[in-house]
Amino acid sequence: MRIILCGFGVVGQSLVKLFDSRSDELYAKYGLKPRVVGVFDSKGSAVDKSGLDLYKLVEVKKKFGTVKNYSKTKNSMSGTDMLKNIEAEVLIETTASNYKDAEPGMTHITTAMKNSMHVISVNKGPLALAFPSLLELAIYNQVMFKFSGTVGGGTPILDYAKNSLSGERITSFAGILNGTTNYILTNMASGLSFEEALKDAKDKGYVEADESLDLDGLDAAAKLVILANWIMGMKVTLPDIDCSGIRKVTVKDIGKAAKKNCAIKLIASCDKELIVGPKEIPNDDPLCVNGTLNAIAFTSEHSGTQTIIGKGAGGMETASSILRDLLDIRQEIARD
Amino acid sequence: MRIILCGFGVVGQSLVKLFDSRSDELYAKYGLKPRVVGVFDSKGSAVDKSGLDLYKLVEVKKKFGTVKNYSKTKNSMSGTDMLKNIEAEVLIETTASNYKDAEPGMTHITTAMKNSMHVISVNKGPLALAFPSLLELAIYNQVMFKFSGTVGGGTPILDYAKNSLSGERITSFAGILNGTTNYILTNMASGLSFEEALKDAKDKGYVEADESLDLDGLDAAAKLVILANWIMGMKVTLPDIDCSGIRKVTVKDIGKAAKKNCAIKLIASCDKELIVGPKEIPNDDPLCVNGTLNAIAFTSEHSGTQTIIGKGAGGMETASSILRDLLDIRQEIARD
Repeated sequence: MRIILCGFGVVGQSLVKLFDSRSDELYAKYGLKPRVVGVFDSKGSAVDKSGLDLYKLVEVKKKFGTVKNYSKTKNSMSGTDMLKNIEAEVLIETTASNYKDAEPGMTHITTAMKNSMHVISVNKGPLALAFPSLLELAIYNQVMFKFSGTVGGGTPILDYAKNSLSGERITSFAGILNGTTNYILTNMASGLSFEEALKDAKDKGYVEADESLDLDGLDAAAKLVILANWIMGMKVTLPDIDCSGIRKVTVKDIGKAAKKNCAIKLIASCDKELIVGPKEIPNDDPLCVNGTLNAIAFTSEHSGTQTIIGKGAGGMETASSILRDLLDIRQEIARD
Repeated sequence: MRIILCGFGVVGQSLVKLFDSRSDELYAKYGLKPRVVGVFDSKGSAVDKSGLDLYKLVEVKKKFGTVKNYSKTKNSMSGTDMLKNIEAEVLIETTASNYKDAEPGMTHITTAMKNSMHVISVNKGPLALAFPSLLELAIYNQVMFKFSGTVGGGTPILDYAKNSLSGERITSFAGILNGTTNYILTNMASGLSFEEALKDAKDKGYVEADESLDLDGLDAAAKLVILANWIMGMKVTLPDIDCSGIRKVTVKDIGKAAKKNCAIKLIASCDKELIVGPKEIPNDDPLCVNGTLNAIAFTSEHSGTQTIIGKGAGGMETASSILRDLLDIRQEIARD
């Protein structure tokens, strides 16, 4: 299967490492032979119609900070041009999420779909701003559109709710969908000030380049949009979310909650209204997880409340979710 | 779809109520028209080749304690005879789990398979004692064999591990798979003695008629057998489990654990060895859930540890898992 990979940060690099290390097994067990024919990062591109050397690709990126130096000619084709000119079956979109205009991811995804390519996106921007119309575009062009890695990283939250609970009506859900703010709140509960906890999270590399995405709840809200559309069949986008972050949470608030055997968590919830905001959660509620963990509790009509907990991020975890999507696409194609 | 239902306790009754209340939706949304042509309980049977009246069935059971009085002739056909003589596509096996010889469930399941019927079992006995050979028998007879409700009740633990995590290698898992012992241990942690906690659990109807199934870990061990076979591809049965229960756990042990910020839980684990026994679990581990909750943590190669928490039992919850299995069978048949 020929793949164009847009974005070559931690996730993209983890993915090609995964392809490389598991290639024999992927072919033997699933008949999947991923051939990466083009890679695009912010500084340039690498293209080889017969498949790039994945090991070399990672080495070049490490050495030069871009895949541009993969060939001597230093390819500077844009992602969009690549999608228009290089034949491939699947776009894997991993450029950074941006909630203003969702570019360049939005153009990558729409270009790919219009060129009859299946799309896997871990970029949340296009989905947050235009989920309903992207889904329509995929249906119109008869391509598959997968985005398992956008919510929960390597934890298959979307698949669980959509498939494992099929035949069941989910009536509401609530979750901790952003590990960074959870880490900060957890540390504030053990005595750090907001500033100290933020600094520590930054030192550990947990905070987005634009810290507002974490602190003001945008990342959690984008995930809520995806869940609401995909699981609940709503047609909503980012402006439909009533969103507040954790900047106003004080150590005093947390202390007050602790006296009631509760912790303050940034909760994204869907129960009639779509809300992201700080909320007191009882310590013995399965949802009340600490550190960078993510958790989500689905309440269904007949099966009660079910909680899934896992690491919400990480390059290898997210890469493994992309691989699952790719295997799904492989299977669907084989079935046709 | 014609169904023979063996066993008509809480789960069986919840299931026919579910069929009755959701019949329009099941047909419109999934093309499923469940027609129960035979029901067998310990005292007798009810049979109607054109489909039993489900409402009447529940009323008769309530009034007489058996479905035998459904018709004036008082049918006393055995489950096995029914499976041999009444045409149907699916057996739903819900008789009580028995870990000595697994009867009558074992004969029901093997008879159905030999008669080319698909089988859904929430009876753990036959799976605990003969999982590998039952799976072989199903393959040999080209029938589907589903058992989602045997582990986790309404929480789709088996489906999650098998399907949502497909493409991922699960390397080990550990779980609280028996809600009754978890309830007893939770109450002992809040100060009750073992005897008091057991009495309370009995009063609430949480304890199996044969209390040893809960207290000596047999129920958890049966679930571990099912998980080990289905998720890890092992070929094991009940005697392969190193199994101990909670009878020897003292309030003193629990107090000692608490000082280390731990709780004692009955853990079923698969990590090279298959073990059921009491174990200290840190309070802030997502696995450390209280009350009657069940929890299981899967550790995979690339996606870290993921924990699922939910109600492990309950008539309606287990019935909803049977319905999911039935929808799966419906879909598979449609695909052929």
